[in-house]
Amino acid sequence: MDGAGKEKTDQTGAKAPPDRLIDLLADDLQTVNRLIRERMASEHAPRIPEVTAHLVEAGGKRLRPMLTLAAARMLGYQGQDHVKLAATVEFIHTATLLHDDVVDESQLRRGRKTANLLWGNKSSILVGDYLFSRSFQLMVETGSLRVLDILANASATIAEGEVLQLTAAQDLRTDESIYLKVIRGKTAALFSAATEVGGVIAGASEDVVAALRDYGDALGIAFQIVDDVLDYGGTSAVIGKNTGDDFRERKLTLPIIHAVASSSSEERAFWERVIEKGDQRDGDLDRAMAILAAHGSIVYARDSALAWAKRAKVALNNLPANKLSETLLELADFVVERVA
Amino acid sequence: MDGAGKEKTDQTGAKAPPDRLIDLLADDLQTVNRLIRERMASEHAPRIPEVTAHLVEAGGKRLRPMLTLAAARMLGYQGQDHVKLAATVEFIHTATLLHDDVVDESQLRRGRKTANLLWGNKSSILVGDYLFSRSFQLMVETGSLRVLDILANASATIAEGEVLQLTAAQDLRTDESIYLKVIRGKTAALFSAATEVGGVIAGASEDVVAALRDYGDALGIAFQIVDDVLDYGGTSAVIGKNTGDDFRERKLTLPIIHAVASSSSEERAFWERVIEKGDQRDGDLDRAMAILAAHGSIVYARDSALAWAKRAKVALNNLPANKLSETLLELADFVVERVA
Repeated sequence: MDGAGKEKTDQTGAKAPPDRLIDLLADDLQTVNRLIRERMASEHAPRIPEVTAHLVEAGGKRLRPMLTLAAARMLGYQGQDHVKLAATVEFIHTATLLHDDVVDESQLRRGRKTANLLWGNKSSILVGDYLFSRSFQLMVETGSLRVLDILANASATIAEGEVLQLTAAQDLRTDESIYLKVIRGKTAALFSAATEVGGVIAGASEDVVAALRDYGDALGIAFQIVDDVLDYGGTSAVIGKNTGDDFRERKLTLPIIHAVASSSSEERAFWERVIEKGDQRDGDLDRAMAILAAHGSIVYARDSALAWAKRAKVALNNLPANKLSETLLELADFVVERVA
Repeated sequence: MDGAGKEKTDQTGAKAPPDRLIDLLADDLQTVNRLIRERMASEHAPRIPEVTAHLVEAGGKRLRPMLTLAAARMLGYQGQDHVKLAATVEFIHTATLLHDDVVDESQLRRGRKTANLLWGNKSSILVGDYLFSRSFQLMVETGSLRVLDILANASATIAEGEVLQLTAAQDLRTDESIYLKVIRGKTAALFSAATEVGGVIAGASEDVVAALRDYGDALGIAFQIVDDVLDYGGTSAVIGKNTGDDFRERKLTLPIIHAVASSSSEERAFWERVIEKGDQRDGDLDRAMAILAAHGSIVYARDSALAWAKRAKVALNNLPANKLSETLLELADFVVERVA
């Protein structure tokens, strides 16, 4: 789900926003990484750090923990609890990845074999549980009940979204409002909790906390829609991942949901065969792409992502202007850049 | 893992301790059950209450939530937060059962088909995650950071114990100290957190809180050793479960650990074949039982359970004497009664 690849520069040679965040937050990130390594250890069960390291050190961009660090620091926070919260957020994220890969029977993540493939489903389930409980210990250490409340609610939204995705998959009745709930669970809930707790720990006013929450929510939604659009190749020839994975897994993402809603009865019969019945044959992905194109479904989903990115930027309007808030602003454009 | 079956009476017609606890805590238990039903609901994902109800309403004795209620009430607690904590404990327990059954590939629990068999592993994993996050929301509502700390630590111990069990299984080097860590994770950590948070929420002194924690810990350990002894038929003809399940799953429980430590080289070759290599043939269970008998391993494990039950009772010494504390005292004898 991490959209950022290796360090990127634009045509003027400037670094991309995630890399600028890495530079701006370098010291904090180092402390977060140290804390993560420390807390993923287990005296008695060496399997735990083995599995965790595989995933945590696999070169993810630490986008979520950076959101927490950036939110706290842009408000002038001088303490150290934001580091604990950033590690918390990364542990929750890693725990959900471990369980997701079991549920999706994934074999590859970030270009490497998945933990479930290497150590089996059992280890992935139990190490995920362990990381979730470790995240819980970390956030308790901050002593902030408000933070605990936010992260408990985010955890429930994540789990509920995952179950909803499981039951909504292959069901053509899935509409945009269900889709939104699924992607809030899948991505936006943790983005928004990440930014919100950064504000809370910095002692920000209610307005500022709400703005940070809205920013994370909108950024996460834009991020996930882009991911779902790219799964059908995007609007141009940008190659981000294998085209058609969601189609083969019969997932009802925004492009398909839009196309189904405006499909002819013949097209509907096609969707019923390939999505609901799962009877997919050679040429079906091409046919699906043609229907998506005919109904402007990719453009529709792209526009939706752009609108959410804009909402993310608007949310930042009333926050202090500094390098960190400017970079968060540019991050919103960056996440939709691949489909813009 | 629930040791208590249907309502039982002893030879004098008196009810067994778990049933007496049900009577003594009837009103509270009703409130707990209402809260559990309320909180397992999900507006958007009906699969969640479906899976949860299957397990939560399957006739478990609610032993763990009763420990929380009993601990709080025996200290004169008059508030309502103990109800939230009791529901929390039951949710954590249910979440671990869902994940355990996936990991152990179980097909039956409490005489009914398991959730993983009925709805698939994916639902069990995700609904388990959901219940865990719901438990977390419930405990946050009590507003007690101390309670959150205890339950976060218990969750980590549970998950670590599960991973340890996974990696220690089939490994003849597993010794009694590793076994103790595994069963603390598997059973005693939640028992002891259940009693401890009952004391904390009641505002008890440090001495009393420590006594409640020790009671829960010792009770849980006794409980689990008894379970493991009964898996080899116990010391008499008591039939509690299918004999030999642990043997077939190549689990290193206390009877085997004791026997392995005193085995001849020929016996050791046998354990290597059946446990480490998993090459089990007709008659192997009988041979295992004969070796256990020859080394007094069942009696050794039984005596260990009895000693832990005694420790549980000693821990209660300095607590107020009333019907609830008396019943907890008798509960310690009750859990080892089947092997005594």
